[in-house]
Amino acid sequence: MDRTLYHKIADQVESQIREGLFKVGSKIPSIRKASIMLDVSMATVLQAYRVLEDRGVIKAQPQKGYFVQTLPMALDRAPMPTVHHNRQSLLNELSAAAQMPDLIQLASSHPHSQFLPIRQLQRSVGRMMRLEPDLCSAQMAPSGLPALRRQIAIRMLDTGCQLTPEEILITLGCQNALTLALQALTQPGDYIAIESPTYDGVYQAAFALQLQVIEIPCTPQGMDLTQLERHCQERAIRACIVTPEHQNPTSACMPLAQRQTLLALAKQHDMMLIEDDVYGELGYKSARREPSLKALDQEGDVVYCSSFSKTIAPAFRVGWIVPGRHFAAIEHLSYVHNLAVPSLTQQAIVNFLESGSYDRHLRKTRTFYAENAVLFQTAIARYFPPTTQTSKPQGGFLLWVTLPNKINSLALHKQALKAKVNLLPGAVLSASGGHTYHLRLNYAYPWSNETDAALRKIGELCFAMLD
Amino acid sequence: MDRTLYHKIADQVESQIREGLFKVGSKIPSIRKASIMLDVSMATVLQAYRVLEDRGVIKAQPQKGYFVQTLPMALDRAPMPTVHHNRQSLLNELSAAAQMPDLIQLASSHPHSQFLPIRQLQRSVGRMMRLEPDLCSAQMAPSGLPALRRQIAIRMLDTGCQLTPEEILITLGCQNALTLALQALTQPGDYIAIESPTYDGVYQAAFALQLQVIEIPCTPQGMDLTQLERHCQERAIRACIVTPEHQNPTSACMPLAQRQTLLALAKQHDMMLIEDDVYGELGYKSARREPSLKALDQEGDVVYCSSFSKTIAPAFRVGWIVPGRHFAAIEHLSYVHNLAVPSLTQQAIVNFLESGSYDRHLRKTRTFYAENAVLFQTAIARYFPPTTQTSKPQGGFLLWVTLPNKINSLALHKQALKAKVNLLPGAVLSASGGHTYHLRLNYAYPWSNETDAALRKIGELCFAMLD
Repeated sequence: MDRTLYHKIADQVESQIREGLFKVGSKIPSIRKASIMLDVSMATVLQAYRVLEDRGVIKAQPQKGYFVQTLPMALDRAPMPTVHHNRQSLLNELSAAAQMPDLIQLASSHPHSQFLPIRQLQRSVGRMMRLEPDLCSAQMAPSGLPALRRQIAIRMLDTGCQLTPEEILITLGCQNALTLALQALTQPGDYIAIESPTYDGVYQAAFALQLQVIEIPCTPQGMDLTQLERHCQERAIRACIVTPEHQNPTSACMPLAQRQTLLALAKQHDMMLIEDDVYGELGYKSARREPSLKALDQEGDVVYCSSFSKTIAPAFRVGWIVPGRHFAAIEHLSYVHNLAVPSLTQQAIVNFLESGSYDRHLRKTRTFYAENAVLFQTAIARYFPPTTQTSKPQGGFLLWVTLPNKINSLALHKQALKAKVNLLPGAVLSASGGHTYHLRLNYAYPWSNETDAALRKIGELCFAMLD
Repeated sequence: MDRTLYHKIADQVESQIREGLFKVGSKIPSIRKASIMLDVSMATVLQAYRVLEDRGVIKAQPQKGYFVQTLPMALDRAPMPTVHHNRQSLLNELSAAAQMPDLIQLASSHPHSQFLPIRQLQRSVGRMMRLEPDLCSAQMAPSGLPALRRQIAIRMLDTGCQLTPEEILITLGCQNALTLALQALTQPGDYIAIESPTYDGVYQAAFALQLQVIEIPCTPQGMDLTQLERHCQERAIRACIVTPEHQNPTSACMPLAQRQTLLALAKQHDMMLIEDDVYGELGYKSARREPSLKALDQEGDVVYCSSFSKTIAPAFRVGWIVPGRHFAAIEHLSYVHNLAVPSLTQQAIVNFLESGSYDRHLRKTRTFYAENAVLFQTAIARYFPPTTQTSKPQGGFLLWVTLPNKINSLALHKQALKAKVNLLPGAVLSASGGHTYHLRLNYAYPWSNETDAALRKIGELCFAMLD
């Protein structure tokens, strides 16, 4: 038998497992099937599978076949290779496009600076460096500035939570909060449930922490709880990340009854809930928001994450986490990863919050976003193929667009880039790809003739792809 | 047999394993020995060990005994319980003391604001918010501001490294860099080697990542390489964190020959090197520093970490990492944990570096620290018991003090706190405690009659403890 060949095949299968093609616990192709697929003898496949058994990567189960036992390590044992290579290059491309200055940027999930209180921040940073330069450059606060934690405790009354400042930890934005929560609550190999579509930072964190991701479809009422329950019955799901208010990208809001069902489900199946509430303050349709999961949770089980990146200053990277009964574990992880978050940016946020301008700023931007939502929806109705559908946001600033089935949004994205428009293809917003005929548009972008022309251009590209 | 009893004993042993008493791969007490230690029958111990085998925590090896197989999870599965409880409460106490405003703070590892370029930062932040407010609050740069990466590439010529800006990633200080490196290079259960004594953030990161820590004594020539080699021969050590320049707390500098030996050792045993060079720019005895490990490494194996926290602004939290061939893995982890580091603090550092003031500032502070080292050493020689010894720093601003054997530095620390002086007991500076008769003093603290009086007071406390 060709010794080189079966080793080559072992390496090939191992690399497929590493790249996430076969998950831990799942069955790999039978010897017969693999011999056909790979065009080699069954004896060669058997030998290759024995090599992988020796490496501890797969395990034979009598009468059943071969199953993935552990995730093999990459050659340099870096814990990230579950992301497919073309996926990673797509993400890199998008990241590069996001930094090009001459594009109409509709792909980001941050507001254009026109909707941020830049003028006030200018004044506040200046004042602060005059009055408290030591505080801002020399003194660190590992859990965050007490004044900021106090302001957040006050703001969180709106979410229905009564917290003391000591229950809140400052993080480097919401992404940092979500990753700290995931890392504290899970072990490599654990299953977690996430929404699909969802923000890419969620599944990227899960991959980096070597978690197994189960994607639950997001309906207009938020995560599909019937499907979540079915998965909970099948296997232990360690944690679930959910965005009950103005989900990114669908803008779905979870009704109160669903929130209570989710909490009961989590309790019954011993599943931790990580609540991403980063769009929570940007609702513009109703006078009051629903209480957060955290507010409905009596036992400190829910870990709540949010930030000021969508409302005040994305690049200040000031977020927070309310870890509940996981406080000690998350505080320790935060110390180990961050030591502390910069005092200067925290203090700038404190000054802005204490000035009393925040509520006025929120009211103003909510009105802008509500108006822009209509402008974008109207333009899409006018310029895009007639079967195009758009979400009906009640908050936030993201529009989820469902294109006719012939229009691949990845191809559309590439063509739009040439026309100097950056939009987000749906494939980026799920761990497994998919959402092929969807795109996300950010309407926290100044409306002008140029914006109108950009949407008309995308519409033309769509029509051209229909032919 | 009492079913409750053997389950209780199983839980007890499991909790000992969890708390780090028995490491993965090590032998636990034999059934006979445990029955004597725990004062129960051998049958009960056998039954308890079977429970732990079922749980997958230990494994019997015929003729050899029982060995720890995997780290059991804590009840809430938070990945941090290897830190002993009294250790954690000591760390919390120290963190609280560090924030008390009316203490003489000699315990920290950051310079007093008098030694930081606060005035220049004030001007630079003000100018920046006037000229580029959008850049600082709205625009994020996931790998760091290009201008900052460029400035760092220039500065790193002094360490002997010729890098392109693209090889450098901006992190949230050096702690973030070290933790990202550790997390990217290791898997839970791996062994890593660290210096003893060392900066507490190193072993805390290792604990949080569920690593097994091997402490290698730090000699005046840096990490004891004979001992490191012995450990490398005994088991696979995945990574080694080392501070070749002005080690915290001993101020040890590793001679060039030792650096080359360490690189060869790492290569031979397939051990990754993580270089902490955070004091690298603060040498004041010789005209030139030794080349960094990174500079001596031809193959991109060394991961280099540093920051501006010791030289410009601790609370700005601007650090960097040079991941070498681990770039993709570390870039991904950094994205997942940080998304980006604040642009405002990065830009403030860029302005300061571009202004050309940095070298002048470094020269000035090096002179201050050299003078202060002598003032502190002289005061200790005058006020402390005669057998007290101090390190002879050639850079940095930390003094390692060896007290007479009767003086427990933890007890001294508690008494000094009452006298309004905060100093660091040696026990904090190692993963396993120890360094009982040592303390660390930060002399980047303004010298005054008050400082002199504080050292005299500590001396008096020492003498009182000798009686």
